Amino acid sequence: MGEALNGLKRTIMCGEIRESHLGQKHVVMGWVQRKRNLGGLVFLDLRDREGILQVVFGEGINKAAFEKADLVKSEYCVAVEGEVVKREAPNENIPTGMIELKGESIKILSESETPPIYIKENLDTDEMIRLKYRYLDLRRPDMQKIFKIRHKTAKIVRDFLDENGFLEMETPMLTKSTPEGARDYVVPSRNYPGMFYALPQSPQLFKQLLMVSGYDKYFQIVKCFRDEDLRANRQPEFTQIDMELSFVDMEDIISLNEKLIQKIFKEVKNVGVKLPIRRMPYSEAMNKYGSDKPDLRFGMEIVDISDIVKECDFKVFKDALENGGSVRAISVPNSADMGRKQIDKLTDFVKTFKAKGLAWIAYKEGEIKSPISKFLKEEEIGAIINKIDAKFGDLILIVADKNSVVLQSLGALRLDMAKKLELLKDNKEFNFVWITEFPLVSYNEEEERYQAEHHPFTAPMDEDIPFLETDPGRVRAKAYDIVLNGEELGGGSIRIHDTSLQEKMFQVLGFTKESAWERFGFLLDAFKFGPPPHGGLAYGFDRMVMFLAETENIKDVIAFPKNQNAYCPLTEAPNVIDQKQLMELNINFQEK
Amino acid sequence: MGEALNGLKRTIMCGEIRESHLGQKHVVMGWVQRKRNLGGLVFLDLRDREGILQVVFGEGINKAAFEKADLVKSEYCVAVEGEVVKREAPNENIPTGMIELKGESIKILSESETPPIYIKENLDTDEMIRLKYRYLDLRRPDMQKIFKIRHKTAKIVRDFLDENGFLEMETPMLTKSTPEGARDYVVPSRNYPGMFYALPQSPQLFKQLLMVSGYDKYFQIVKCFRDEDLRANRQPEFTQIDMELSFVDMEDIISLNEKLIQKIFKEVKNVGVKLPIRRMPYSEAMNKYGSDKPDLRFGMEIVDISDIVKECDFKVFKDALENGGSVRAISVPNSADMGRKQIDKLTDFVKTFKAKGLAWIAYKEGEIKSPISKFLKEEEIGAIINKIDAKFGDLILIVADKNSVVLQSLGALRLDMAKKLELLKDNKEFNFVWITEFPLVSYNEEEERYQAEHHPFTAPMDEDIPFLETDPGRVRAKAYDIVLNGEELGGGSIRIHDTSLQEKMFQVLGFTKESAWERFGFLLDAFKFGPPPHGGLAYGFDRMVMFLAETENIKDVIAFPKNQNAYCPLTEAPNVIDQKQLMELNINFQEK
Repeated sequence: MGEALNGLKRTIMCGEIRESHLGQKHVVMGWVQRKRNLGGLVFLDLRDREGILQVVFGEGINKAAFEKADLVKSEYCVAVEGEVVKREAPNENIPTGMIELKGESIKILSESETPPIYIKENLDTDEMIRLKYRYLDLRRPDMQKIFKIRHKTAKIVRDFLDENGFLEMETPMLTKSTPEGARDYVVPSRNYPGMFYALPQSPQLFKQLLMVSGYDKYFQIVKCFRDEDLRANRQPEFTQIDMELSFVDMEDIISLNEKLIQKIFKEVKNVGVKLPIRRMPYSEAMNKYGSDKPDLRFGMEIVDISDIVKECDFKVFKDALENGGSVRAISVPNSADMGRKQIDKLTDFVKTFKAKGLAWIAYKEGEIKSPISKFLKEEEIGAIINKIDAKFGDLILIVADKNSVVLQSLGALRLDMAKKLELLKDNKEFNFVWITEFPLVSYNEEEERYQAEHHPFTAPMDEDIPFLETDPGRVRAKAYDIVLNGEELGGGSIRIHDTSLQEKMFQVLGFTKESAWERFGFLLDAFKFGPPPHGGLAYGFDRMVMFLAETENIKDVIAFPKNQNAYCPLTEAPNVIDQKQLMELNINFQEK
Repeated sequence: MGEALNGLKRTIMCGEIRESHLGQKHVVMGWVQRKRNLGGLVFLDLRDREGILQVVFGEGINKAAFEKADLVKSEYCVAVEGEVVKREAPNENIPTGMIELKGESIKILSESETPPIYIKENLDTDEMIRLKYRYLDLRRPDMQKIFKIRHKTAKIVRDFLDENGFLEMETPMLTKSTPEGARDYVVPSRNYPGMFYALPQSPQLFKQLLMVSGYDKYFQIVKCFRDEDLRANRQPEFTQIDMELSFVDMEDIISLNEKLIQKIFKEVKNVGVKLPIRRMPYSEAMNKYGSDKPDLRFGMEIVDISDIVKECDFKVFKDALENGGSVRAISVPNSADMGRKQIDKLTDFVKTFKAKGLAWIAYKEGEIKSPISKFLKEEEIGAIINKIDAKFGDLILIVADKNSVVLQSLGALRLDMAKKLELLKDNKEFNFVWITEFPLVSYNEEEERYQAEHHPFTAPMDEDIPFLETDPGRVRAKAYDIVLNGEELGGGSIRIHDTSLQEKMFQVLGFTKESAWERFGFLLDAFKFGPPPHGGLAYGFDRMVMFLAETENIKDVIAFPKNQNAYCPLTEAPNVIDQKQLMELNINFQEK
């Protein structure tokens, strides 16, 4: 049973009342966080989106209100009218802690059963329960804080891009399925039996069309979809901040986006981002950090020691070098005393990245221990220590193999060691870096052909165009990723707008004229009619909010997320649909 | 072949140059609208998003640039550097008409084939061609103007709602299919064979959950989907401005939205909307205009003449009245001389609304003509003319039947006559009205049960709650539509937040506890935990933009719309998908 408002108006939010309101009469509405009956007084902690307010009812203030207030339980929704008075026992932990509301009347707007989860910060209830009762989980103040951040961030982005001449334009959700790429979610068509729309993985082709159409600067905060096996922090539907600009080069896009990033972090987190943001070519990122999204908040850089060991007697090193590979190392601080078992675990770890093994040198004051010391001259070990700038107590970890394996395994090992050593504990830094000069294409050994690293419309760097025909693997792209604390926040590229260059690119990728047309027909058609030079960038909005809200769980920043199996415990989607509708769609299901 | 920018920067948009820029050097980039070679001079009309600029190249200015400029054709994309000079023959029709750019160099950024449609305003090319070459159609200045309006309107809405304490929150696109309602678009699930997600028809249930979760004020500009047979101005995907508020009543929602509407029309169209906006109960709208979205820009109101004719000899009238129906009429100006054939067509027209016929009285100075004059006394005809306040020259059109037929057919006839008489030609008025006091439920004669007029969560008006059990058809809802010039711009309601009232409502609608649970389970669950009083409203954003852009075609306000068959001539969606993907989804297609 609930009472009606009957014209009663809220005059202020619970969390907004301060000492400046003392003596004023106010009406507040919200949820009962807690009720205490201390004999002649009932205290309610009343909660709304803006905070918590203490309300006190007394037999001496208003007996009827006191008695009614005593009926309420946790999570009842109530309206209270009363006077703001000074609190006898101030609570300095909350902004409303100096005052309380002397309750003169109360309406019970609705009752509540005992909630199955606590409405409090830092809940560690099972995720399945949190998702099933998401409407209660979303009541928690830390969740509400996240969605305020999400709203505010979107608002800042929109204001900034509007001020900079961008138009927000909507691209279709029901669009065309493109073979290759990630798996599309598809939507059967009733009008065209056997045919499907696809939900977009990104508005890429449409935003390029809008540039051909002369819209000059486009953006959109937009849902995108991928039907992939879900890993941690992936969701079937996710949100991008997507933009595309005409008549610009990479510098224009980077400098505009640096200003945007600066503004977001200033306004949401009061953190200054120093501009220009550091830039690092892809090759440097790979060589030093074994990753195209390096975490630069700590060192432990990868060092190439091939030169030093090239004459040594250790067959593993020699073989790697003779096969065109390399020998590289990282120096892990305060780990020279690591036990053999732990080192064996690290060896197992790098093997998951296809490394054949892990060599090590424990560098302690007055002692150097290493299973490979018998193969290396003292000068060689000294040179390694010297080159990697090891300190007493460091453990040098070495991998020898082909370059891709060496870099990937040492890059992963570097992150793993940083985690184990808690190097980033209590680190509040936001460390940005632009990664540039990505390879345009990579060779797919299985399919014996080159494939685009970004997509086939990414422009090569001008100075590398001559290599497109002679040595495609060497061509660098006008592509750029913005990386924050070792995570890709966004990325983009300048696109090819020249038909003959585009044709050359398709040749490199092994497309025939026909197959290129089949996939990208309407964009290629459009490019016949004076396409402008253009480029763009897209951010993962969910991930951005994760950084701003300081959570590592993507489900915390999406109001109604799916679980790991793309299932929604709240609505029980997906579910079965009417047989009639299946008939209309002409769909049968195969026997299992 | 296209030239690269090579660091060349645009300094200003074509459409932005004015006399204040005289003497300045500028770089502009855009598309060639037109080229003229007048002997020693080449003139280019260069177009970008902001307008058109005349650029002149001369042998005497720069010979190389002149020769290159002479190579370009329509829709080539070029960059020009030059000096802003006074134009010899000013063109007062365009904002840049007083100046021109003296072209000192030109880059041909990309070439263009001859476009298959003209890039000009008010194109009347076949729609199929326009949609196939949408990227060219979107280049037209009148289309670009529409998408600027669309962007600006969304921005105004977001700014306004942000200022008023709303949070924009995203609700899921992959959600649960609900039986009944319009037909859902569905998305097969790979993880759960035979099960489907549904694309949302609206975020209704989620926004109510967000109120239960204490977000207080939610909004979203969001895509919604309906797999219906497309009528004119319907699209499979459309955009809503959706909002929901807690602790409010209808007055709060209406007054907030009036301010929003006022702001939009002021800032986009410089049209003042006088507040408060007129309100009209549903019953008045139906009785006077035969519609719940009356066009109030003209009169021709429906008048009930039952009382006057109740004693007459005309059987059709008498039968209608005896069967509980009515006799009503409209008076059409300047139409008393309408020929019999035309009147026959009007009769056919009302028959499509199930009226059995159409009686008429032609009221001319000194003469009254009517096929029913033999059945009516002179006083009766006089009383009709009097009550309907007919003027000489009016044609009175009369329908007698059960009320719903009478009102629907006269309402449609009223609109039809206004169109034929061009009453609204050159009418620039924006005539708003709130329709209120809608019936809560209506009786479905086929299924012999009451059904919700809006949805089952719409609250009844307080004073009508007693009739819920005794006479449900009489209960009015706390629902409201905002109507503009005879079109529904948006609508909403206060929701039921009281469990026992909700149960009563389900009883009226013939739901068992189980069937209600099956459909709305998670919302009903949520309502057990202290739901706040709440209500909301949603606008059709596409329709709003149609009004603001003064177009009557919804395809003009959607960048990439589908055609009447839900097909996209540009991308050729829907299309077939890989057999492999069908297998993964476990889908077979039935033989036709």
